[in-house]
Amino acid sequence: MSNEELTSTIKMARQNGIVQPLLTDLYQITMAYAYWKSGKVNDVAVFDLFFRTNPFQGEFTIFAGLEECLKFLENFHYSDSDIGYLKQTLPDNIEPEFFAYLKDLTCKDIKLCAIEEGSVVFPRVPLLRVEGPLIIAQLLETTLLTLVNFASLMATNAARYRMVAGKTVSLLEFGLRRAQGPDGGLSASKYAYIGGFDGTSNVLAGKMFNIPVRGTHAHSFVTSFSTLDDIHTVTLRHSETQAPYNLLELSTQWRIKVSAIVDISPEEASDGELAALISYAIAFPTGFLALVDTYDVKRSGLLNFCAVALALNDCGYRAVGIRIDSGDLAYLSVLARESFEQIAEAFKLPWFSKLTIVASNDINEETILSLNEQGHKIDCFGIGTHLVTCQRQPALGCVYKLVEINGQPRIKLSQDVGKVTIPGHKEAYRLFGADGHALIDLLQRSSEPAPEVGQKVLCRHPFQESKRAYVIPSKVERLYKECWKDGHVCVKPKPLLEVRERVQSSLRTLRQDIKRNLNPTPYKVAVSDDLYCFIHDLWLQNAPIGELS
Amino acid sequence: MSNEELTSTIKMARQNGIVQPLLTDLYQITMAYAYWKSGKVNDVAVFDLFFRTNPFQGEFTIFAGLEECLKFLENFHYSDSDIGYLKQTLPDNIEPEFFAYLKDLTCKDIKLCAIEEGSVVFPRVPLLRVEGPLIIAQLLETTLLTLVNFASLMATNAARYRMVAGKTVSLLEFGLRRAQGPDGGLSASKYAYIGGFDGTSNVLAGKMFNIPVRGTHAHSFVTSFSTLDDIHTVTLRHSETQAPYNLLELSTQWRIKVSAIVDISPEEASDGELAALISYAIAFPTGFLALVDTYDVKRSGLLNFCAVALALNDCGYRAVGIRIDSGDLAYLSVLARESFEQIAEAFKLPWFSKLTIVASNDINEETILSLNEQGHKIDCFGIGTHLVTCQRQPALGCVYKLVEINGQPRIKLSQDVGKVTIPGHKEAYRLFGADGHALIDLLQRSSEPAPEVGQKVLCRHPFQESKRAYVIPSKVERLYKECWKDGHVCVKPKPLLEVRERVQSSLRTLRQDIKRNLNPTPYKVAVSDDLYCFIHDLWLQNAPIGELS
Repeated sequence: MSNEELTSTIKMARQNGIVQPLLTDLYQITMAYAYWKSGKVNDVAVFDLFFRTNPFQGEFTIFAGLEECLKFLENFHYSDSDIGYLKQTLPDNIEPEFFAYLKDLTCKDIKLCAIEEGSVVFPRVPLLRVEGPLIIAQLLETTLLTLVNFASLMATNAARYRMVAGKTVSLLEFGLRRAQGPDGGLSASKYAYIGGFDGTSNVLAGKMFNIPVRGTHAHSFVTSFSTLDDIHTVTLRHSETQAPYNLLELSTQWRIKVSAIVDISPEEASDGELAALISYAIAFPTGFLALVDTYDVKRSGLLNFCAVALALNDCGYRAVGIRIDSGDLAYLSVLARESFEQIAEAFKLPWFSKLTIVASNDINEETILSLNEQGHKIDCFGIGTHLVTCQRQPALGCVYKLVEINGQPRIKLSQDVGKVTIPGHKEAYRLFGADGHALIDLLQRSSEPAPEVGQKVLCRHPFQESKRAYVIPSKVERLYKECWKDGHVCVKPKPLLEVRERVQSSLRTLRQDIKRNLNPTPYKVAVSDDLYCFIHDLWLQNAPIGELS
Repeated sequence: MSNEELTSTIKMARQNGIVQPLLTDLYQITMAYAYWKSGKVNDVAVFDLFFRTNPFQGEFTIFAGLEECLKFLENFHYSDSDIGYLKQTLPDNIEPEFFAYLKDLTCKDIKLCAIEEGSVVFPRVPLLRVEGPLIIAQLLETTLLTLVNFASLMATNAARYRMVAGKTVSLLEFGLRRAQGPDGGLSASKYAYIGGFDGTSNVLAGKMFNIPVRGTHAHSFVTSFSTLDDIHTVTLRHSETQAPYNLLELSTQWRIKVSAIVDISPEEASDGELAALISYAIAFPTGFLALVDTYDVKRSGLLNFCAVALALNDCGYRAVGIRIDSGDLAYLSVLARESFEQIAEAFKLPWFSKLTIVASNDINEETILSLNEQGHKIDCFGIGTHLVTCQRQPALGCVYKLVEINGQPRIKLSQDVGKVTIPGHKEAYRLFGADGHALIDLLQRSSEPAPEVGQKVLCRHPFQESKRAYVIPSKVERLYKECWKDGHVCVKPKPLLEVRERVQSSLRTLRQDIKRNLNPTPYKVAVSDDLYCFIHDLWLQNAPIGELS
């Protein structure tokens, strides 16, 4: 093997990592054998992948994970070592021909249609429609669910944060340390970015997905300095003249001047903290963003930061801002902004009033809403645990249901009407009103003609007979695109940035009342009259008549 | 490169996967540069990794993830491509020597001491103590947290399920499809097993960690059959005589006989379901465990299962049991058990009454407690979403704090007393009472002599002056073991099975009231008198004196 081949093999191993056919539930493989054994090798099936309820008590979901699903189809292949493991795991009486069959299995006969990644989607409208040989379509179930469920949940969560934070505030994902495992963290970084975050602290995510990475220093950096004697280097050269300046001297002088303006005694401020901030500023004169709550924001951190920022200014550098990681974020951000404004005025440095204020302590949607009400002065939120673990609801419940086999529709009944599946091979359309907003998603049998602009369409609730409405769409969007066919990806996956833009443009088509945080209006999902009758005929055929006793 | 080397390189890439030095927060690397730039290359630090609150409103936590941490230390190395990425990501003015420094960085000068993996652990007692050069010790923070946080959370969650389910019930992890990404799923399978589960549905986890895998079939298998005509193969050979039997004929005959006993009309039962179960039984005659709720457990599934199980018995095979995935699990399990007992008696097949009943619908701790109260007859729970996402609390809040630098203690103060760190290089001991139960965990300064059996020890609350107690331990366990030193793992990590046993033996040392689900008693964590005084002297030295205004 050449070095190039080697590199690409290793790269493949790294890229695909654990997303491989054995990343599945055992019952997919036992079912595959039972299908194979009972002569169903040539059966052709249609499966729908969909969810039944929007997460986070909201009324919309962002669909994500499609690119990963396509990669999985592309690389689907049982290795010799996989087959060896299955042989030793399944009962002894499995016919050896089955393993030969598995060994040769690929996704070349599978067709996958999907809604565009990054779109807003709704309950019961399938996100993926998988068609092809029953056995292989069944074998894809668990992995596709794993890839779509968390990706969509994260993207939705991030989009919700973006909505409550507003467009002008920066959002950074800081959650790696609390994520559900290393890849839980990586996926979180990726899909938070897609959902509308501006960057991540996760360096590997930055490298792998080309996401902006952000970060400065932690409390431990500050506590590692005790006194001003702990500073080893005090010299910084001017950004233009290259003249050497003593940043320690400048900073201590500025601390006295600033303390008079903000009315805080310089004796109260920690010298260890000042030493740490000076050291950090010397290392990053162009990126000086300092954590100011190690001891006390008001009495120490803010004063020390302003002193160093003004000293940096003497050397031709503009500081970036501060991060506050504890305490009353609304109050402290207002206090910091006021101090910045006082200093801007006192020293005729207008840019000082615009310094960035980052806040980052256990923030969630509700915290942001509450901070908004209190009139905070924060420019950027760093969000960890609640974002990356989707603490409010840590799983999306996508399911993968058989809806047709050999051309015959299949229905899964349930005493819970919400769990009855919509049978058959279907198309989905989004109908838009004259104002450009999405009105309704409509599921039809694939044999029906598409709804037409300007034509009256009868839209029915799938299960409640009396709920019907006529809609005259001003625009009709066919939701499914063929993504995988004949062993190839049909539509090249879009770059991350475009998927990220798709999320925002798709969200803009939703009315505000559907997106609001409190008691949002449900978006309507309907079936055509034809599909309604089809469902209910099939239901009656399959439901046993009970007996009261 | 030889084929062998190639294989091992690819294996390494696969194994380590994304657990690599760049799986970290950017601020670790910017801090590293600021430390480096300010002459702190030879500073020596001690960091403690600990949590502040037990998860799930409980009073204990299981420590897990240590083996992964050691693997991470062993493989810690920035690749050329990593360095390239950092060069392009960090500001232009970073000195090139810093990248050369990073390139050569390894963990050879790090010493890591840890509590034994699988032990019960408590708030504030460090799980890991990391000592060594400040820069490298700091660079390990995020990755160590990522590896310990979710592992420990999952193991704790699993151990809690095991406690409420009791020792005799089997517990299977079925959560892959709802897990937080592919590796979220793999980690969940691994640490659920460590915490006390008996197996997983996740095939890759089975292969990678040698965990028993379990699974039979899904609803889609059942709905893929419509009528008895859908059966392609009806023949099963007798397990001993090899004589051919027609399983379809036998099953339909048995269905009539059974229907008389359990008083259900055979016309009500689904023929498609019977066809599916017969096909499954022919494929897995030794492992016939059937999902019985696709249509109606009572009117269809149970009857069809018993018919096929009795037909299998004619062929010399014993069925395994049923799985119920919806409805009233307590009622349906009792009904199923009664039917099994009636059949056992009617046909003189005592083993039939002992058939396994698996239940698997959205189960959590509370469901199991409620089922226990109702007197269920379930032998095995399959648990997914709530287990693998730790829905009740999806993150453990371990932190990593600097406690000493160059021999000088460091304290992180906070207005929230619970967030004040315990400074200095410490040892931890667990003191046991005469009955073998753990009484208290005691933190001491490392310079103090260890507590001795039979000797009175003064144990103090770390922050509340008046809370003190004398303890005379009957056994003293030193909690930290050296795990990594001089670039090598010191204690070979135990096999998964031994860690799993450690969890149960460690839990047995806790009093029942500490482990109970409702309002458990807190386990005590104390500091020695010496450490108490040390903390409070340092606190006073570092806390600024406020001014009321």
